[in-house]
Amino acid sequence: MRPLEVSPVRDAIRILDQTLLPHEECWVEISTAEGAAEAIRAMQVRGAPLIGITAAYGLALGVRRDPSEEAVRACSRMLAATRPTAVNLQRALARVASWMPLAPLRERAAAAWAEAGRIADEEVAYCRAIGDHGLNLLRELHSRAGGRRPLKVLTHCNAGWLATLEYGTALAPVYRAQEEGLPVEVIADETRPRNQGWLTAWELQRAGLPVTVVTDNASGLLLQQGEVDIVLVGTDRTARNGDVANKIGTWLKALAAHAGRVPFYAAVPSSSIDWAARDGSAIPIEEREADEVTHITGIASDGRRTSVRLAPGGVAIRNPGFDVTPAHLLTGLITERGVAEASEAGLLRLFPEQAR
Amino acid sequence: MRPLEVSPVRDAIRILDQTLLPHEECWVEISTAEGAAEAIRAMQVRGAPLIGITAAYGLALGVRRDPSEEAVRACSRMLAATRPTAVNLQRALARVASWMPLAPLRERAAAAWAEAGRIADEEVAYCRAIGDHGLNLLRELHSRAGGRRPLKVLTHCNAGWLATLEYGTALAPVYRAQEEGLPVEVIADETRPRNQGWLTAWELQRAGLPVTVVTDNASGLLLQQGEVDIVLVGTDRTARNGDVANKIGTWLKALAAHAGRVPFYAAVPSSSIDWAARDGSAIPIEEREADEVTHITGIASDGRRTSVRLAPGGVAIRNPGFDVTPAHLLTGLITERGVAEASEAGLLRLFPEQAR
Repeated sequence: MRPLEVSPVRDAIRILDQTLLPHEECWVEISTAEGAAEAIRAMQVRGAPLIGITAAYGLALGVRRDPSEEAVRACSRMLAATRPTAVNLQRALARVASWMPLAPLRERAAAAWAEAGRIADEEVAYCRAIGDHGLNLLRELHSRAGGRRPLKVLTHCNAGWLATLEYGTALAPVYRAQEEGLPVEVIADETRPRNQGWLTAWELQRAGLPVTVVTDNASGLLLQQGEVDIVLVGTDRTARNGDVANKIGTWLKALAAHAGRVPFYAAVPSSSIDWAARDGSAIPIEEREADEVTHITGIASDGRRTSVRLAPGGVAIRNPGFDVTPAHLLTGLITERGVAEASEAGLLRLFPEQAR
Repeated sequence: MRPLEVSPVRDAIRILDQTLLPHEECWVEISTAEGAAEAIRAMQVRGAPLIGITAAYGLALGVRRDPSEEAVRACSRMLAATRPTAVNLQRALARVASWMPLAPLRERAAAAWAEAGRIADEEVAYCRAIGDHGLNLLRELHSRAGGRRPLKVLTHCNAGWLATLEYGTALAPVYRAQEEGLPVEVIADETRPRNQGWLTAWELQRAGLPVTVVTDNASGLLLQQGEVDIVLVGTDRTARNGDVANKIGTWLKALAAHAGRVPFYAAVPSSSIDWAARDGSAIPIEEREADEVTHITGIASDGRRTSVRLAPGGVAIRNPGFDVTPAHLLTGLITERGVAEASEAGLLRLFPEQAR
């Protein structure tokens, strides 16, 4: 199962509407760039790799309608403005747009669509490779722990196949462990305000993997008490020095893991590395709407999806969507080329072509 | 306003049902020990001092029905079993029960009721004194910050008058600052799973104090970015060495405050100090029901209080109610006798009668 499917005649994509999960599986057809932008903005699709892929197809849909360079530029700007933090978005748009000066007008739509497909294929390959490198880490931890009990993996937000196309980033090692018969249990943070922890639970339940959900506050205690063997998280943008921007709250878990001497890794496909960002301070942090905090949606006793207001009237809200975990708190970065130390030197050892 | 009122004829108490806040102000009359136990268990009353006071009156109501020592012992056991972490509960029950061997049968109910009243009066006096000592800290920080902008106080859970009777513990310095004209703004953590942050917002809004609510995940970022001047939290039980058990998630905020060099204080009335607990590892951590995490209650669009399920079916949950912040992360403990260093020596300097 993939959260995004592509029409064989290149006139639409279908996405699994993640705002309705874990309660309803509802597919939405998108046939315009504007539709793709809205799906990204509303978080019907989410996760840095999937945002990039959706934006790429969205731009390809725009090119299909009007392949002029001016129109493509405007369309790309619109898509880029949807979410500021994930670098995959900008990079995917730039790649698709790069075909415009190269291809004649009537071939541009096909070129754009093919580039979007290449981006999607690359993300899948990155996830698979991250899964393999992460699996080695899990194997090592499992045998170091005596090999007799399941390994306990804590994750924050959702960085599974719902956030990518297959395997996921942070969850890829977990799925690979399952394939290889290495026993793994996952503890999923709730991840307020958008509660992506419930998406992680839904995803892992479908895969038949044991999962326990805890509030964001409780994950600290589990790290303190030695009930977690390893923390695996994704990233929306990783800076050149190894600082990792990820879903709000990641930094708190990294601090707790550090205090509890629990290894803490970010799964970082190179599509999420911003080589131009010297460190985390260069990464823009998205501030989102107050109603994500004041209201919450679930299933009422009558079985209907219902939004309820939690807040008293008129209260002020701050709702930053991401934070930056400084490199020194990370045990390492799991990239598609292997596990890097979270530093510029560590990343350049695996990506020497990025040296300046 | 107080969250608990006492009948003049000593046959009942009235409590503000905190499970309905911030949406409805509903008072509940309690005329039996069993009713008091249920109110504590269901968190209609909450906060270590208020739990202690409610249990004391609950036991006094039990004594009124049957003043025999055997009945009082059984009643006390029932009340003590409601919540394990707050030490105020056990201590208040022991104080009320201590009158049984001293008073003749027909005077026991009056003696128990009077002792409950003394406990309540003491808690109010402690809160007021904590407010004065904390106010000095706020004044100092305010002038150190140049005195030109409001001081920003972050708090976790609710340790205001709702958790005590008047002023609160962590919020007492804030209310005293308001009385003295020192400008203060409060940032309240949501405090999943029970969302006491909304209680804090409601309480402060009523008092006309500016308050901003953030998710538990976001409070870390604010501490990292220097948007908080001081963190003030309460405690359910503080060990002899200064380790502070408080609402789950407190430790994460303490780690973040430490990393961001923001002063972090717990407001600790001596009624919450467990001198017999050598350190935090001796403090029992309550594990609560899964439905506090899987379900949430708010106001639906039709204006009705509605509980919605967040979780996919059948998912496992862990729901610890408290964690322990080690003394070394605390800048100090604000007690009714002054501000102590968070250590045995620091506490004994203010409470020399507890030296062994």
